[in-house]
Amino acid sequence: MHEYMELTFLGTGGSWPSARRNVSSLALKRGSEVVLFDCGEGTQRQFQRSDISYMATSKIFFTHLHGDHILGLPGLMQTMDLNEREDPLEIYGPPGIKRYVSLTMSRPLPGLSYPVEVTEIDDGTTVCFDEYVVVARPKFSKLQQGEAVEAEDGSIVEPEQVLGDPRRGRKITYTGDCRPCEASVELAYRSDVLVHEATFAVESERAHEVGHSTAAQAAWIADKAEVRQLFLTHLSPRYEDPEPVEDEARKVFEGAEVAEDLDTFTVKFPPDEPPEVLEGP
Amino acid sequence: MHEYMELTFLGTGGSWPSARRNVSSLALKRGSEVVLFDCGEGTQRQFQRSDISYMATSKIFFTHLHGDHILGLPGLMQTMDLNEREDPLEIYGPPGIKRYVSLTMSRPLPGLSYPVEVTEIDDGTTVCFDEYVVVARPKFSKLQQGEAVEAEDGSIVEPEQVLGDPRRGRKITYTGDCRPCEASVELAYRSDVLVHEATFAVESERAHEVGHSTAAQAAWIADKAEVRQLFLTHLSPRYEDPEPVEDEARKVFEGAEVAEDLDTFTVKFPPDEPPEVLEGP
Repeated sequence: MHEYMELTFLGTGGSWPSARRNVSSLALKRGSEVVLFDCGEGTQRQFQRSDISYMATSKIFFTHLHGDHILGLPGLMQTMDLNEREDPLEIYGPPGIKRYVSLTMSRPLPGLSYPVEVTEIDDGTTVCFDEYVVVARPKFSKLQQGEAVEAEDGSIVEPEQVLGDPRRGRKITYTGDCRPCEASVELAYRSDVLVHEATFAVESERAHEVGHSTAAQAAWIADKAEVRQLFLTHLSPRYEDPEPVEDEARKVFEGAEVAEDLDTFTVKFPPDEPPEVLEGP
Repeated sequence: MHEYMELTFLGTGGSWPSARRNVSSLALKRGSEVVLFDCGEGTQRQFQRSDISYMATSKIFFTHLHGDHILGLPGLMQTMDLNEREDPLEIYGPPGIKRYVSLTMSRPLPGLSYPVEVTEIDDGTTVCFDEYVVVARPKFSKLQQGEAVEAEDGSIVEPEQVLGDPRRGRKITYTGDCRPCEASVELAYRSDVLVHEATFAVESERAHEVGHSTAAQAAWIADKAEVRQLFLTHLSPRYEDPEPVEDEARKVFEGAEVAEDLDTFTVKFPPDEPPEVLEGP
């Protein structure tokens, strides 16, 4: 039940790749399974440079459909096919992801060696797997507060189904592209790890205009949400040197770290906290 | 008229990328213009690592529509747009390229800051520009032999229009994916540079089966065609070490070189040859 979990940043740049940073992708390794969040162009090559296996990827979640988060999917799918994958690949994303995957498969992937299952999920959807849930927006806090939620397939998820273990689960929050907002605070509340975008260091007006966050804003979310660890990602290609971004964040949240491509972090249980027993409603 | 020309290998791997090699793309810099041949996934990032500018790319030619040669186009086009390109982008490729570009532009590129002109070209088509021609198959030899050829727009191209200078032009041949064939010998005849695929070192049966060439076969083409320089590209990801590939080729064509990603070579005029005057028919 308590699988080893690690996060590998496959791409930490926003908008377009630089020599230093590839565009967005984040791999979560949990036991032998890899779950991918976003798949920007070049993700399959980042896998090749890392210690994790693209073939072990069972599920891909897309936060949104911007090019720098999705354009690595066709190549990754083709390479899985060329390597004779047979396991199904599950893909989850916002409305529009079905059309994107179907366009992807029409050219240049007329036939694949494995089945692909695509699920469109809306804001607030909870997707349940055997030992964990993925929440697209702030429903997780309800589970933590002991409330049942409705899952994507219509079934009701009771907190003890996913949180019922004497030792509480680990919680990772990944924001995708966003402005700072209360919903992020709620979603990230007491996460073990928050991965927040910090496209800009200080240009908050510009950030707001283009729907992004500054480093200080990301740190503000981390602080308000009382997360244990904050990683910043999706840096604008303008930042050759990430230090100004990290410095800005650390003024607000001590220990904030700018993630570098291929950085890997173990997601640990809180060491000093007593196991928390969650009870149903 | 005699612009400085250099070839930069942006990707030298076949099928899928490895840590060492990205998939196919070859940039030809001629004066201030960059002409790209193939654009595999990750090409825009290879540009960022090189000294050449993706924004200076005026034309992209696709040899064929396999994923490892085309999947970098959407990201490159998006990045040109994000950087407010205004110059038109010309795209040439085999039948099917129009559909691919139109799918690319429907998602995630609803509107672009620059016009895109796509031309489908068939085997044997000659595309004429002010100071050079691009030939999709063996028509160039006709021009060299003093024969006129019909261009893609129906106009007749006389040899002196493109070769009429007292000093002969430079000739570069790039094969795309192929088995060894007489057409390649004809096309590559007396090229200053031949860029030939060598997906395999020695497995000629496997190479034939999947429509590719071995290193020795590529070298055989170079030798028969009397080219001045041979670069091997499109190596299978199985070759961590390119030495076996290069060794096999050098048994047949001395001086054959396996190109590495970001290698740049100047395309020189033949140093010891007297200028060749070509006359019309």
